[in-house]
Amino acid sequence: MAIGKQKVGEIFEGFALIKDVKKGTTSGGKPFLTLVFGDQTGEMEAKLWDSTKEDEQLLLPESIVLVNGEIGQFRGKAQMRINAIRPAQPTDGVHIADFIEKAPVAVEELKDRIMEAIFEMKNPNLQRIVRAFVKKYEENLFLYPAASRNHHEYTSGLAHHIVGMLGLAKGVHDLHPEIDRDLLYAGIILHDIGKLRELSGVISTSYTTEGKLLGHISIMVEEIAQMARELQIEGEEVLVLQHMVLSHHGKAEWGSPKPPMIREAEILHLIDLMDARLNMLGRVLENTAPGEFTERIFSLEQRSFYKPAFSVKTELDA
Amino acid sequence: MAIGKQKVGEIFEGFALIKDVKKGTTSGGKPFLTLVFGDQTGEMEAKLWDSTKEDEQLLLPESIVLVNGEIGQFRGKAQMRINAIRPAQPTDGVHIADFIEKAPVAVEELKDRIMEAIFEMKNPNLQRIVRAFVKKYEENLFLYPAASRNHHEYTSGLAHHIVGMLGLAKGVHDLHPEIDRDLLYAGIILHDIGKLRELSGVISTSYTTEGKLLGHISIMVEEIAQMARELQIEGEEVLVLQHMVLSHHGKAEWGSPKPPMIREAEILHLIDLMDARLNMLGRVLENTAPGEFTERIFSLEQRSFYKPAFSVKTELDA
Amino acid sequence: MAIGKQKVGEIFEGFALIKDVKKGTTSGGKPFLTLVFGDQTGEMEAKLWDSTKEDEQLLLPESIVLVNGEIGQFRGKAQMRINAIRPAQPTDGVHIADFIEKAPVAVEELKDRIMEAIFEMKNPNLQRIVRAFVKKYEENLFLYPAASRNHHEYTSGLAHHIVGMLGLAKGVHDLHPEIDRDLLYAGIILHDIGKLRELSGVISTSYTTEGKLLGHISIMVEEIAQMARELQIEGEEVLVLQHMVLSHHGKAEWGSPKPPMIREAEILHLIDLMDARLNMLGRVLENTAPGEFTERIFSLEQRSFYKPAFSVKTELDA
Amino acid sequence: MAIGKQKVGEIFEGFALIKDVKKGTTSGGKPFLTLVFGDQTGEMEAKLWDSTKEDEQLLLPESIVLVNGEIGQFRGKAQMRINAIRPAQPTDGVHIADFIEKAPVAVEELKDRIMEAIFEMKNPNLQRIVRAFVKKYEENLFLYPAASRNHHEYTSGLAHHIVGMLGLAKGVHDLHPEIDRDLLYAGIILHDIGKLRELSGVISTSYTTEGKLLGHISIMVEEIAQMARELQIEGEEVLVLQHMVLSHHGKAEWGSPKPPMIREAEILHLIDLMDARLNMLGRVLENTAPGEFTERIFSLEQRSFYKPAFSVKTELDA
Amino acid sequence: MAIGKQKVGEIFEGFALIKDVKKGTTSGGKPFLTLVFGDQTGEMEAKLWDSTKEDEQLLLPESIVLVNGEIGQFRGKAQMRINAIRPAQPTDGVHIADFIEKAPVAVEELKDRIMEAIFEMKNPNLQRIVRAFVKKYEENLFLYPAASRNHHEYTSGLAHHIVGMLGLAKGVHDLHPEIDRDLLYAGIILHDIGKLRELSGVISTSYTTEGKLLGHISIMVEEIAQMARELQIEGEEVLVLQHMVLSHHGKAEWGSPKPPMIREAEILHLIDLMDARLNMLGRVLENTAPGEFTERIFSLEQRSFYKPAFSVKTELDA
Amino acid sequence: MAIGKQKVGEIFEGFALIKDVKKGTTSGGKPFLTLVFGDQTGEMEAKLWDSTKEDEQLLLPESIVLVNGEIGQFRGKAQMRINAIRPAQPTDGVHIADFIEKAPVAVEELKDRIMEAIFEMKNPNLQRIVRAFVKKYEENLFLYPAASRNHHEYTSGLAHHIVGMLGLAKGVHDLHPEIDRDLLYAGIILHDIGKLRELSGVISTSYTTEGKLLGHISIMVEEIAQMARELQIEGEEVLVLQHMVLSHHGKAEWGSPKPPMIREAEILHLIDLMDARLNMLGRVLENTAPGEFTERIFSLEQRSFYKPAFSVKTELDA
Repeated sequence: MAIGKQKVGEIFEGFALIKDVKKGTTSGGKPFLTLVFGDQTGEMEAKLWDSTKEDEQLLLPESIVLVNGEIGQFRGKAQMRINAIRPAQPTDGVHIADFIEKAPVAVEELKDRIMEAIFEMKNPNLQRIVRAFVKKYEENLFLYPAASRNHHEYTSGLAHHIVGMLGLAKGVHDLHPEIDRDLLYAGIILHDIGKLRELSGVISTSYTTEGKLLGHISIMVEEIAQMARELQIEGEEVLVLQHMVLSHHGKAEWGSPKPPMIREAEILHLIDLMDARLNMLGRVLENTAPGEFTERIFSLEQRSFYKPAFSVKTELDA
Repeated sequence: MAIGKQKVGEIFEGFALIKDVKKGTTSGGKPFLTLVFGDQTGEMEAKLWDSTKEDEQLLLPESIVLVNGEIGQFRGKAQMRINAIRPAQPTDGVHIADFIEKAPVAVEELKDRIMEAIFEMKNPNLQRIVRAFVKKYEENLFLYPAASRNHHEYTSGLAHHIVGMLGLAKGVHDLHPEIDRDLLYAGIILHDIGKLRELSGVISTSYTTEGKLLGHISIMVEEIAQMARELQIEGEEVLVLQHMVLSHHGKAEWGSPKPPMIREAEILHLIDLMDARLNMLGRVLENTAPGEFTERIFSLEQRSFYKPAFSVKTELDA
Repeated sequence: MAIGKQKVGEIFEGFALIKDVKKGTTSGGKPFLTLVFGDQTGEMEAKLWDSTKEDEQLLLPESIVLVNGEIGQFRGKAQMRINAIRPAQPTDGVHIADFIEKAPVAVEELKDRIMEAIFEMKNPNLQRIVRAFVKKYEENLFLYPAASRNHHEYTSGLAHHIVGMLGLAKGVHDLHPEIDRDLLYAGIILHDIGKLRELSGVISTSYTTEGKLLGHISIMVEEIAQMARELQIEGEEVLVLQHMVLSHHGKAEWGSPKPPMIREAEILHLIDLMDARLNMLGRVLENTAPGEFTERIFSLEQRSFYKPAFSVKTELDA
Repeated sequence: MAIGKQKVGEIFEGFALIKDVKKGTTSGGKPFLTLVFGDQTGEMEAKLWDSTKEDEQLLLPESIVLVNGEIGQFRGKAQMRINAIRPAQPTDGVHIADFIEKAPVAVEELKDRIMEAIFEMKNPNLQRIVRAFVKKYEENLFLYPAASRNHHEYTSGLAHHIVGMLGLAKGVHDLHPEIDRDLLYAGIILHDIGKLRELSGVISTSYTTEGKLLGHISIMVEEIAQMARELQIEGEEVLVLQHMVLSHHGKAEWGSPKPPMIREAEILHLIDLMDARLNMLGRVLENTAPGEFTERIFSLEQRSFYKPAFSVKTELDA
Repeated sequence: MAIGKQKVGEIFEGFALIKDVKKGTTSGGKPFLTLVFGDQTGEMEAKLWDSTKEDEQLLLPESIVLVNGEIGQFRGKAQMRINAIRPAQPTDGVHIADFIEKAPVAVEELKDRIMEAIFEMKNPNLQRIVRAFVKKYEENLFLYPAASRNHHEYTSGLAHHIVGMLGLAKGVHDLHPEIDRDLLYAGIILHDIGKLRELSGVISTSYTTEGKLLGHISIMVEEIAQMARELQIEGEEVLVLQHMVLSHHGKAEWGSPKPPMIREAEILHLIDLMDARLNMLGRVLENTAPGEFTERIFSLEQRSFYKPAFSVKTELDA
Repeated sequence: MAIGKQKVGEIFEGFALIKDVKKGTTSGGKPFLTLVFGDQTGEMEAKLWDSTKEDEQLLLPESIVLVNGEIGQFRGKAQMRINAIRPAQPTDGVHIADFIEKAPVAVEELKDRIMEAIFEMKNPNLQRIVRAFVKKYEENLFLYPAASRNHHEYTSGLAHHIVGMLGLAKGVHDLHPEIDRDLLYAGIILHDIGKLRELSGVISTSYTTEGKLLGHISIMVEEIAQMARELQIEGEEVLVLQHMVLSHHGKAEWGSPKPPMIREAEILHLIDLMDARLNMLGRVLENTAPGEFTERIFSLEQRSFYKPAFSVKTELDA
């Protein structure tokens, strides 16, 4: 059964991952638990009324449970009222990995695309640095989300974001062959790798102390310098790559102490923006009916988007 | 001889278009003329010292002259000191069209690309509206610049900008086929057509009264409504197309009274930004030596861009 | 009995209009309804605890009910606890119109004042356009509020706002006869007519899709062009009137893609501001005791206003 | 002969007031003087080439001279080239007062209007304070400009501004009799009186040290307190009047440490804005041809205003 | 027992000051009271479920009660559930003064430090004005907090803030003896004295009408003028002192109509900022464990601060 | 003879350093040179009219010349008209170092103060890192200015700035011993060391490519990481020191991608601000007469400062 597809009035019965648990007390003074359940299809808040001390000890974040509950509504959002719940047991044969949202493209394919881009590079300095980073972070690079929320916030989200950007970059380069494609590809692959140190992990992603005090941009600018020293690379490519990463948020208020001052850095910034926005909009509009507006989207300046009705019709007529 | 390629210390002798003329008086009280000469390769300021009443009457903007002058320097820019000058005569066989900067792609090719995009559209309402506008503005659409300055500020600049954006849109659509390509193409072709009424023309482009009081966005939102009425088209496409045009500057401070609230409107805005910036950067960097910074670019937030030296080398080595 | 005059601790019994209904569940899991009751004197929130399915089906927005309830307090605001409630029946002889807040001036008088202003105009182009719009929107122009909230948010609010502005304009013109009064009057009467398409109606006013995607300013700029074509009017008045409407919010951040660039447009903007603020302040201060501060007023930059005690005394002494 | 009416190519011969003098050296190393001449019709820059030590000693600011010069043009503005110049002599019978721009209404009439407004007041506290201030600053109040530039920047400009605002206030009060007219009138008469200490005087107006360090708003808030103590007035009127003055610039960025928090303070701010803008626009448009745009106006956010052609026609037809 | 030191799960029994009381109704419709208890160690919210009319009459703000309750948690903060409560009686021997948070330095010491600074002054005008103010406000100056919240928000907080700033000023003057120490000391002692009229008092501090309409800065600028007149002091010191107070918030958006335009005014602003921030940070970090982040601090731009773990170790090793 | 002390009308004859040279052409078409002369007392612009090719070859930046010229005035600033000029010869016995402005404290003393601070540190990790940096940059650290303009823009300016800040830090720590003094000292000494790579040098200081693309903050964050690796230091001190440097500009718009999130980082930011402002103000006020305003100071938000007259008198009387 799919958490993200439940409708108000239905009964849900099945396994789910506990993503968050909070204790509360009703205004009448009774204890209850507010849980967030999730699986690959989405998330839902749930209430366990009259919870016990035992419930508190058993129902832990990042564990799987078998749950039966009724889907109601609270402030316009679906909310489950739990009837019965128990932790999953080894014999249930369920695995955390099956309950976490994943990129819509297989990891192997993401790897192939990134390796292909590296293979196409002709500048040996850029190629060696990029290759070394992909090797260094081999595991997490294909596991981490691209952000704790907002866009590509799912397993392999970072690699999915990189591959999406490489696609856009190829299109731009085909039209403007004067662009240094190697530099653009290198910037794309490296630009967010600092997030592997900025974010805590894949489930219940939060910020590390290092992430809060330095941020993924400064972390990566430093890593590039160190990697170049290790590989004994000394060309201007090192400085320029550092600048690509440093400036990719576009301006100071958005976290880049220097704005893009190289053509490929400017393009990197714009492609990053476009891929992130296409991802956010795609995910929200998928769940919006034609002729309706979406909810306000926080990271798109609180805008609410309209999904025209005619696009669907044109498609059907075609 | 090419105005845009002259170097300090050289003597220029040849024909040039007068783009602007201003009268001045030296601190010693003597009259002189400051002219701006131009041809397809660029512009240069020139001084005619000790000018006469007759000079003032003969040397008019938008006329062609034969000029001999010495190239000096003023505030870091090349400036010509005119030795001799006379208006071109019919027997000289020179034509204004040969002295105006043009898009780097032939008009016929620009036309073909736009017609091809219209031909690919499946939504009849969008297709009919777009086709009708291209027919209505057939002449100027392929003649006007996209702006009086900043980007695509040359003959056929508007059509060149449209074609550049269609290319980017195709790339985005290939990666994200869920996007309504017809809507995006329609938005791209129409988004700046209001400039044909906002701007005065091709040479010495300025703003019309209508352009100043309403702006090209409001002009076009109104034209779409009128065209739809003329074509007796009533679907939601009309409203959505108007919104595409209305919101393409992205936010209120930049001239769009409504921000993009449709996915394709958001993409239109980002593609517009990207094509304009690629055009500006391309033109500036073409005249910048590797390893140097450009001058500050007004419409890129006064940034000065660096042209890495290694890109050239990689290219040569390849 | 008057909803807007109830005090904490009293029992309300009488008819009221349901302006909004929302379903909720107590933290103990029991269903209840939150209603907003209204009549010509104001609004009040009410709670119907332990509501039934039947309640949900009977108690619909925009219907009238007979209700008995106790007035309590919640977060500093009066709130009714419903004891008994039933839908009004035909035999009750109550009409929706009697429960909606109205402008403090009779519709007929508002009509007279606007017609009088049109009659005074000497410029035939302006006069014909304005007259045609008043005829076209005859019904709604005197029915709609001027906004969904903030100022003149009651039946005939738009016409009341227009008449208030005409009064201020007359005063300004008397002092500065060099102002083009016809143009100013025309701008005042037309400036917000786009709201008749932007807003959904009179009760529970919300935004239409067209209103969200284009906004009342762009809607009206387009309507003026169309009306002029229909009336075959071609003078500069059309462009200038469009600019008056386009610029009346004063600056880009407030929704006007062009700032006022004509004297009368600047005055229109300032008079609009003044009439809206006088309306808001008048309504809030009416319910504020001398020597007290009002609540923070959202659309007056969250300011809280003080009502001096001496004004009343001076008045009484006079 | 009128300085402000000279046209390029004419010869000016007549008396003028020297408003400013600066010494310069040509790039050829020769001394010259740049003077600003003025009379009641306007100002003009002038150059005295090859000036002598004696010239420097004789041609002093705020003195009158007899001058003969040719009107040329410099950067789009008229500029005089001086042929002959000598200081005015007692026998010339010219007086500084005849060369300074004045309010277009006679001082006596301005006085009458202000006294009339005071006479209409019923609140004795407000009336006594206002009367005392008018008495205290009797001379300068009817002499000073309202600002060193921007609006009402001429002799009696302050009183002219007050009278303009009183007219607008009367109009607003007639429509909204619930407004405390006495308070509004008091606020209007006092709001800018601090400028009598902030500004240096009537000719070549600059800021005093006190004006720079405290500003006219703080100066006046303090004066009201002191005046009330002298008159032994203790009611809330004192505090409220101080607030009226304190908040009349509308918000912190514009110099008011508190925004208007009383209805009449809000109206004072809006009326101040309207009278200042009407004054600026009126003066600029008077010198603009129908169908033309004005120059950019600094204190109207650098906007350039259009003067419609049809207003004039309507007037003529009427 | 200490309110500020209670931990979740404990039972509190002891006296406490009621700082605030609000009535509420549960979603089940039952009345309850929300109280804020305080003593010298801090504050805590408490709930009295099923409260009676009698409770409402007895449990008043600024009274002391004997309370027994269980410490639970609500939204991450400790909250007491009241078991039993009664007003304190004369025989209980408790005094309000013992329940109010105090500056960590004795009032006598604060007085000594301020008098010492005055004693050191050599400029007789500055010294006499400052001495007169300290005498005039003798009582409240050593009683009031420096603000209603944010920093130094406890009894004698204002004097504590002054003394902290005098310490910093001394350090700056030692390094830069060219600074006018008398002026800086005078500015420090007077800068916030307007708060004695802006704020309502020591317990449950709120803003007075005068405080809201004028603010402590304008109040004090005026008081300085009045005091100087009373003392018949006329030197430039008066104007300069007024400017020190007027500009000490640093810029218009922060409440200073003029920015600092005198060296000592600039230093006063910076020292004010530093002492306030040191106070806020010190108090928050005291309650934060090494290696942890604080909650977001409202008046430090919502920043959350990290307390390094190593500082403690270094200290212990030392 | 001192360049910075020359008065209008005097003749200067002596040696000077050429800091800048630009070629120009008079409006009459003749070549001239504009030079900037400097010595330890200041700078002055100079004109060499009718310059020759030989002049251009001999008069090079960063060379010393013997010059005779007359001091005139241009736009309110002193300007020299050169009568005679020749390059200095070995036999003249003049040295560049004698013509460059220096910190007002001897380098040896600056060194002593910094070493003393390092010696006082108890935290071995912080101490070793700081000591290593002082050793690494031994030469330039005591040679470079702290900025290319604005504050401490003279030889040894960086070290002078560090020492000024250490003095302020000591004062703050004495009053607030809970502050981690070692961390604060370390942050102060390292915070601007990145400028040794950001700036080009001591004379005619400009920005390096690295300085433009990365900035001194990012450069130093990276250097700290590298230094810690070299010294094999791994404690939290490294991360915290990096944060100190990263955040010392206070907010994103001022170049710090993270705001201060550690108490000592906040203090570092405030002390940096205070020392820079004291330095700027001190230097400007030194050349301002009592009772006068300074020119507008660019990096103090274009403010003009007043120098009270009474401070001097108090000093004299003392």
